[in-house]
Amino acid sequence: MVLHLVPRCSARLLWASPGWRRTYTQGASVGQKRLGCPGDTYRPLACRGHSSVSGSPEVMLTPERYPVQRLPFSTVSEEDLAAFERIIPGRVITDPEQLEACNVDWLRALRGCSKVLLRPQTSEEVSQILRHCHKRNLAVNPQGGNTGMVGGSVPVFDEVILSTALMNQVISFHDVSGILVCQAGCVLEELSHYVQERDFIMPLDLGAKGSCHIGGNVATNAGGLRFLRYGSLRGTVLGLEVVLADGTILNCLTSLRKDNTGYDLKQLFIGSEGTLGIITAVSILCPPRPKAVNVAFLGCPGFTEVLQTFSTCKGMLGEILSAFEFMDSECMQLVGQHLHLTNPVQESPFYVLVETSGSRAGHDSEKLTNVLEKVLNSGLVSDGTMATDQRKVQMLWALRERITEALSRDGYVFKYDISLPVERLYDLVIDLRTRLGPRAKHVVGYGHLGDGNLHLNVTAEAFSQELLTALEPYVYAWTAEQRGSVSAEHGLGFKKKNVLGYSKPPVAVKLMQQLKALLDPKGILNPYKTLPAQA
Amino acid sequence: MVLHLVPRCSARLLWASPGWRRTYTQGASVGQKRLGCPGDTYRPLACRGHSSVSGSPEVMLTPERYPVQRLPFSTVSEEDLAAFERIIPGRVITDPEQLEACNVDWLRALRGCSKVLLRPQTSEEVSQILRHCHKRNLAVNPQGGNTGMVGGSVPVFDEVILSTALMNQVISFHDVSGILVCQAGCVLEELSHYVQERDFIMPLDLGAKGSCHIGGNVATNAGGLRFLRYGSLRGTVLGLEVVLADGTILNCLTSLRKDNTGYDLKQLFIGSEGTLGIITAVSILCPPRPKAVNVAFLGCPGFTEVLQTFSTCKGMLGEILSAFEFMDSECMQLVGQHLHLTNPVQESPFYVLVETSGSRAGHDSEKLTNVLEKVLNSGLVSDGTMATDQRKVQMLWALRERITEALSRDGYVFKYDISLPVERLYDLVIDLRTRLGPRAKHVVGYGHLGDGNLHLNVTAEAFSQELLTALEPYVYAWTAEQRGSVSAEHGLGFKKKNVLGYSKPPVAVKLMQQLKALLDPKGILNPYKTLPAQA
Repeated sequence: MVLHLVPRCSARLLWASPGWRRTYTQGASVGQKRLGCPGDTYRPLACRGHSSVSGSPEVMLTPERYPVQRLPFSTVSEEDLAAFERIIPGRVITDPEQLEACNVDWLRALRGCSKVLLRPQTSEEVSQILRHCHKRNLAVNPQGGNTGMVGGSVPVFDEVILSTALMNQVISFHDVSGILVCQAGCVLEELSHYVQERDFIMPLDLGAKGSCHIGGNVATNAGGLRFLRYGSLRGTVLGLEVVLADGTILNCLTSLRKDNTGYDLKQLFIGSEGTLGIITAVSILCPPRPKAVNVAFLGCPGFTEVLQTFSTCKGMLGEILSAFEFMDSECMQLVGQHLHLTNPVQESPFYVLVETSGSRAGHDSEKLTNVLEKVLNSGLVSDGTMATDQRKVQMLWALRERITEALSRDGYVFKYDISLPVERLYDLVIDLRTRLGPRAKHVVGYGHLGDGNLHLNVTAEAFSQELLTALEPYVYAWTAEQRGSVSAEHGLGFKKKNVLGYSKPPVAVKLMQQLKALLDPKGILNPYKTLPAQA
Repeated sequence: MVLHLVPRCSARLLWASPGWRRTYTQGASVGQKRLGCPGDTYRPLACRGHSSVSGSPEVMLTPERYPVQRLPFSTVSEEDLAAFERIIPGRVITDPEQLEACNVDWLRALRGCSKVLLRPQTSEEVSQILRHCHKRNLAVNPQGGNTGMVGGSVPVFDEVILSTALMNQVISFHDVSGILVCQAGCVLEELSHYVQERDFIMPLDLGAKGSCHIGGNVATNAGGLRFLRYGSLRGTVLGLEVVLADGTILNCLTSLRKDNTGYDLKQLFIGSEGTLGIITAVSILCPPRPKAVNVAFLGCPGFTEVLQTFSTCKGMLGEILSAFEFMDSECMQLVGQHLHLTNPVQESPFYVLVETSGSRAGHDSEKLTNVLEKVLNSGLVSDGTMATDQRKVQMLWALRERITEALSRDGYVFKYDISLPVERLYDLVIDLRTRLGPRAKHVVGYGHLGDGNLHLNVTAEAFSQELLTALEPYVYAWTAEQRGSVSAEHGLGFKKKNVLGYSKPPVAVKLMQQLKALLDPKGILNPYKTLPAQA
């Protein structure tokens, strides 16, 4: 059902791009060995095991664009390759074409020059690899789906790439509690299908679901589209298995909702972006699959009305509100222009997507209809459409989820992922439009309004140092002034490690560096990432 | 409204104990200076600023009952007292009667012999105190409401007691987002009243709410009665201010739902029981106050039926299910005998308390009534009563919440707080009844079934080494065999630190000890607690 609200314009609900649905449908089933990565639609270049660069412009080597010095790690020798081959026979990749894809991030902004890609299948193999690298002082770049936004998943120089792609087995699923235990390389969308068949859902969902690995999700503490309802991975991840820098296996892979025995070590690794250990398996609590899902897509005349619509939804929908996303009119223009998606409602300065997930369809649509009547009657919303059947729900979600893809087709993208007090969330976008003027192609704002999380993106024909200088540190200083976070959910990776100080005091940064030194004294795990270099 | 289901017996809903309601009503308002501790009803002896021991039997000194050696810390000198007096004039307590109360835990099982109690009001004062103690190598015992179950909050020897009781100010509350920022010494129940007046609730609730401090809740990662719905403090605590062992103030007191800038340091301190730093302020996300709360209290003929009732509730109540607690018939017998509470339903082998919290009263009671009809008709439940008005809801909750109090009046209590696979949750209780025979007065099981959390309690006339030997390590080994946790929510404190190895592998224990050494190299913070002594 697509229930259309005033004014009626269902004829406009067209989806012109035949490719977009692939994100939702393709991908090998869980448990199947995967050599490639699905979700190609919006991943122009990722670790596929074959080169995809033909026709694409060359990506500059990272050290050519950014001021970064190689640290005195060893370089991979023939003896090292032989040792790796003994540990994982046939899964040591040195073919330059295959390596190319894993050396470049999917935003095509960074390029490393690693000479070897390792594809272990078990934590024991990861342990042996790390033991060797630790002894030999070889730097290691852990890589999941390579969908990160901040350059955390590709090497900066010649780090050994350790991919979790072949660690893709479900270990167990408890169909009463909904606790899933799986290897780190399982693709999020495949896990999603797996648990949905058993009447549960994954507690997180994000645009990159077709490619990202659960281990990478946990390592970056991914937020995404279900955060508002199901909260942070810090609450839903129940256990982890991690291999430490020296190859020690730390088994905290429990499946208990509560466990207060000593310090909660798994928290160290959630969000540490592979710099403290490599996550090899995850135990995660999946919520029951909601019996009814409704999505409304609404046009709002201004940002104040967006905020008031949010308050209304929170108050009236309560426990069934599962997402509240917003996007501005430039986002809509871009998904139309580059992906040929059609705006299902009247053109408006802002759009919001409201999702409810509940246990009783009748109750839920009654609640949502009441909300929609109220926001339409009070002028908070100028037009809206509502969907309950899965295909239409996905169509509406695509408008929001595929903004990233549309942006990447618009040119070079400067990406910012910021937490701000919700009432100031859009001010920075307006401010930047004035500040940048015609130097920017587009300045857009969208994101998880319900979580106070703005995705601010600026596109240009090509990378421009002048534009970068106009943006940074201005954006970070503006955010710090509002006591916001300069990385809400993307992490710091390579690109943002030096802006940590805008959101954390020196005492905190020092303690982080001490933790790094304790867990990885040689600094071999994902070097040049997350933390600024020590003075 | 109390809707009574078959058979009718509302006349039995009597509450004979005039004192029990004090837990819900007394206590100074938030922001007011507090010198005493409310919640006297079930705290026979706590830190009140005056002695309460007259008439109570003497509690043995901890080192007389347990094998523990004082570590080579300095002892508090006249010069130290003078230094403390300069930092917090008039708030250095050395009066033996006042100290007595803070030296003994509320279960009256442990007694330290501290000679000084410090009552700072600000984090700056805590910082100066710790700087002094660190320099002088004086051990420090942080103390909140002193309601802990495992002896984490009282000194073992002569540690300086640092109380958060005067750090009881609300710093800010955001009435759109529900984010509360407050000092660590705010009493949970007072915060609860504070946010309820603003249409929010605290994300945690527990029996000790009238006395426990929010800082202590966070330091022990308290679970409690709302865990099923609102999850762990690891998700709801947004920021912390912590004073480190050397007096450094670590300010991570942000109010952002999402913040992925570097390692999430606050997680180190959540659940570390004051051994890594002293929490001085907390930022926490409060959920909107549910518009409708329903409670059903049901009698079940067996534990299998308890489990099936839980599955039914999960499936049919979905997002509005906010608590699922259980207790056995011996618990009911004890609350009747010691507190004169009356069983509102037919006598049954098991009882469950089901709570729903939702946004629409009509929808919610329709859902709950449907569930109750189903479980009654299918024989899963033999009798039940349902309440929606607040007073009756609290009466039903009291049956569950006051079990701890009833147990403490029954004699010496051996307490275990265990996470287990839910289907095995009650087996250990049955097993122990056989094993202990008449040596135990009562062996009871109750707890947070929805979280897989059993509170197993054994009472006896007095402490008995023979009974202890029959219980330990048997209970821990049994739990380990089921891959459970030997401390689900109470923490390890002093009493359980040596059983950590039953739930965590040696690699994890070693890493915990390394973290302790990094953050508190002199080991002055809450020594003899949480971690086993290093070999």
